[in-house]
Amino acid sequence: MASSAAAIVSGSPFRSSPLIHNHHASRYAPGSISVVSLPRRVSRRGLSVKSGLIEPDGGKLMNLVVEESRRRVMKHEAETVPARIKLNRVDLEWVHVLSEGWASPLKGFMRQSEFLQTLHFNSFRLEDGSVVNMSVPIVLAIDDDQKFRIGDSNQVTLVDSVGNPIAILNDIEIYKHPKEERIARTWGTTARGLPYAEEAITKAGNWLIGGDLQVLEPIKYNDGLDRFRLSPSQLREEFIRRGADAVFAFQLRNPVHNGHALLMTDTRRRLLEMGYKNPVLLLNPLGGFTKADDVPLSWRMRQHEKVLEDGVLDPETTVVSIFPSPMLYAGPTEVQWHAKARINAGANFYIVGRDPAGMGHPTEKRDLYDADHGKKVLSMAPGLERLNILPFKVAAYDKTQGKMAFFDPSRSQDFLFISGTKMRGLAKKKENPPDGFMCPSGWKVLVDYYDSLSAETGNGRVSEAVASA
Amino acid sequence: MASSAAAIVSGSPFRSSPLIHNHHASRYAPGSISVVSLPRRVSRRGLSVKSGLIEPDGGKLMNLVVEESRRRVMKHEAETVPARIKLNRVDLEWVHVLSEGWASPLKGFMRQSEFLQTLHFNSFRLEDGSVVNMSVPIVLAIDDDQKFRIGDSNQVTLVDSVGNPIAILNDIEIYKHPKEERIARTWGTTARGLPYAEEAITKAGNWLIGGDLQVLEPIKYNDGLDRFRLSPSQLREEFIRRGADAVFAFQLRNPVHNGHALLMTDTRRRLLEMGYKNPVLLLNPLGGFTKADDVPLSWRMRQHEKVLEDGVLDPETTVVSIFPSPMLYAGPTEVQWHAKARINAGANFYIVGRDPAGMGHPTEKRDLYDADHGKKVLSMAPGLERLNILPFKVAAYDKTQGKMAFFDPSRSQDFLFISGTKMRGLAKKKENPPDGFMCPSGWKVLVDYYDSLSAETGNGRVSEAVASA
Repeated sequence: MASSAAAIVSGSPFRSSPLIHNHHASRYAPGSISVVSLPRRVSRRGLSVKSGLIEPDGGKLMNLVVEESRRRVMKHEAETVPARIKLNRVDLEWVHVLSEGWASPLKGFMRQSEFLQTLHFNSFRLEDGSVVNMSVPIVLAIDDDQKFRIGDSNQVTLVDSVGNPIAILNDIEIYKHPKEERIARTWGTTARGLPYAEEAITKAGNWLIGGDLQVLEPIKYNDGLDRFRLSPSQLREEFIRRGADAVFAFQLRNPVHNGHALLMTDTRRRLLEMGYKNPVLLLNPLGGFTKADDVPLSWRMRQHEKVLEDGVLDPETTVVSIFPSPMLYAGPTEVQWHAKARINAGANFYIVGRDPAGMGHPTEKRDLYDADHGKKVLSMAPGLERLNILPFKVAAYDKTQGKMAFFDPSRSQDFLFISGTKMRGLAKKKENPPDGFMCPSGWKVLVDYYDSLSAETGNGRVSEAVASA
Repeated sequence: MASSAAAIVSGSPFRSSPLIHNHHASRYAPGSISVVSLPRRVSRRGLSVKSGLIEPDGGKLMNLVVEESRRRVMKHEAETVPARIKLNRVDLEWVHVLSEGWASPLKGFMRQSEFLQTLHFNSFRLEDGSVVNMSVPIVLAIDDDQKFRIGDSNQVTLVDSVGNPIAILNDIEIYKHPKEERIARTWGTTARGLPYAEEAITKAGNWLIGGDLQVLEPIKYNDGLDRFRLSPSQLREEFIRRGADAVFAFQLRNPVHNGHALLMTDTRRRLLEMGYKNPVLLLNPLGGFTKADDVPLSWRMRQHEKVLEDGVLDPETTVVSIFPSPMLYAGPTEVQWHAKARINAGANFYIVGRDPAGMGHPTEKRDLYDADHGKKVLSMAPGLERLNILPFKVAAYDKTQGKMAFFDPSRSQDFLFISGTKMRGLAKKKENPPDGFMCPSGWKVLVDYYDSLSAETGNGRVSEAVASA
């Protein structure tokens, strides 16, 4: 599946060409000009980068990947560290997230003081007294046996599923993993069936290990989509190259329909009205762990590609790139993480919708979160004061116009709401949605996806197929 | 029981004489002198109060009790408001807490924005951008029927169990009561058997009603202990009268033993060493709802009285007063509330022990919270930066000295730890603890309490007796 996806997306209009730095990039930057700290790769070129992009949290974008010149030495060191921890899929996604600075100023897996502040305050205080947002624990669990084997060591080597060293964790701190409390404070429930908890917490070890990460090489998945995984540093370079004077981020984990597109183009229009000259959209689909009934990343990327090819979104003012985080489905707690990470990627506007990062309650017949809590919590979150929150206007299918439009409550009978469940149901049955709901080529990707699923169901491989990508 | 308690505590050495303002009170105040806003009763006297006491949260101590001159009018208004809500015991305790400004700058039961910030951030941001700590929801629940009856009203009258108006809640806001989420985020568990949740949440209504409180008269319990319920304003006056240049608070819900006393006298010694001339102890036993197996307030107050009579604590530098809050047993979340409320009462030092506000897990064989999390969370809590946290040294019975002493791990075999469970067991069996564990007259109060319980058990009235006070 991965290789066919790669074949299809090659030649796409997504921006993934080598990034060329533009010295005039900041010409449109309004207001105060501030120095953006860029990671070593840029600094080493000796460029003095100035732009109006929002500063990363803590003032400096973390880059935890070992410099190329030191890789050989560090890889040798990694081989000699006696204690090793095997990373599972979600662990590796967090190493990726941390390595590129999405979680700046975090320098590695959380130590206890960061973990406790995250659980209790959704933020933590830096040494200079300033506060940064951090709402989801980024932690690494180990079991009793691993803890025993680490003993008094000060560092451990993290390895992938086949034993290849990925990173060294230094100045480690091992502390208890209060699983029930972590789940309760992150999700506001301890009901069984929370996808991330089942995947990464409930069966995990009784200890957490924090420390500073040195990642040996940039994390790659070799699934044909790596070139769409731009780091915050690369995204910032791209925004500067395009002369963006405002960057608005749209987090998504679903196929893009014309309601989304309407919202994004309308946001750009509003930003232009506000006086910005060149607002750029960061369309940043989530690429890590998702629950089994979400559409897998590779299919979503094909669908997004069609949307851009069809001109529903303007490739000139849109950057499509994959956000490497796993999905927690933790609603108001998680939406803060989604927003904070995009600050680090250079976004100063964030679009937030109804029930962001929400899902149905795993054991009760209701949504897990109040649909309005996400945007309310986000708008009040400590450490996100610098970010402009753009509430999502509700779009629905306007039967009188035959297209997606902003819902007008004064003529509600004219509108049709097409839920995700309904959309999936139609695609599974190879039926078409109303004209104008989604561009036909994008819709075909969805139909093909469900088609591939039912073909695989015949082979009894459905769960594997859904869990991959 | 209440009246006999009143008889015993009369003539006690606790400070409850009429408070006389001392113009020279601030002579010892070190560092910057700041104006402390005192409630109307003081301001009306035309005094210009200056002292070194810590400022209340938000800069102004709330006093939500209607001025005496307006009481008649407001009581009449309360009678005419069509919508009425009957307060239960815990609701009334929160009205008391709010009315006296322990929760400053809160002006009444939380509206949704305060509730959400409390749950997610344990703090909230004021209009001027500053942050105050607020870790436990102070909310009022109503059911569907009450919500229907309130309809479009803008205010409701709160009445006691026999229908007497207590307060008016103005500019009301009604919003959903997410019980599971509230419990999960406050306690870090949703296990059944959390005393406060069972008492005040699980069976409560599906809606919360927030608004600004006007309390018609100071809240009184007529249990003989009201004169020991000093408000934050009265406590501040008392500290000023005594010329305190440091106030250190000790929260407790248990009988005082000599280990506590050692800690408190040692803290005073340390503060004197730090250069303070007159540190005053606020011994502030919790007076609201407690779980059934805690010693009831009236018995605890008798016990505290004996401790002061016996000279274990110095009455000259100790103020004993009741903290009207209910007890949540919410560990690291609740200890922040305990500390924050004492800032409002004028304390700038707070003593925190092992597992503050903790209890056993209601369904598992372990403590609900890690014993160290409370002080760690407290030391990092947003909005409490101004408060000096004094970690509790562990005291135990030193067999070589025959008294309570700070535990010395180098000769651990010399020490005996007497847990609360062990203490209760001894008192129930009318046995004596080792000499020097608690002053004999204080111990006798405990023995008498358990004696009264077993007498009542014979009458089948034990649960009522335990639940009262």
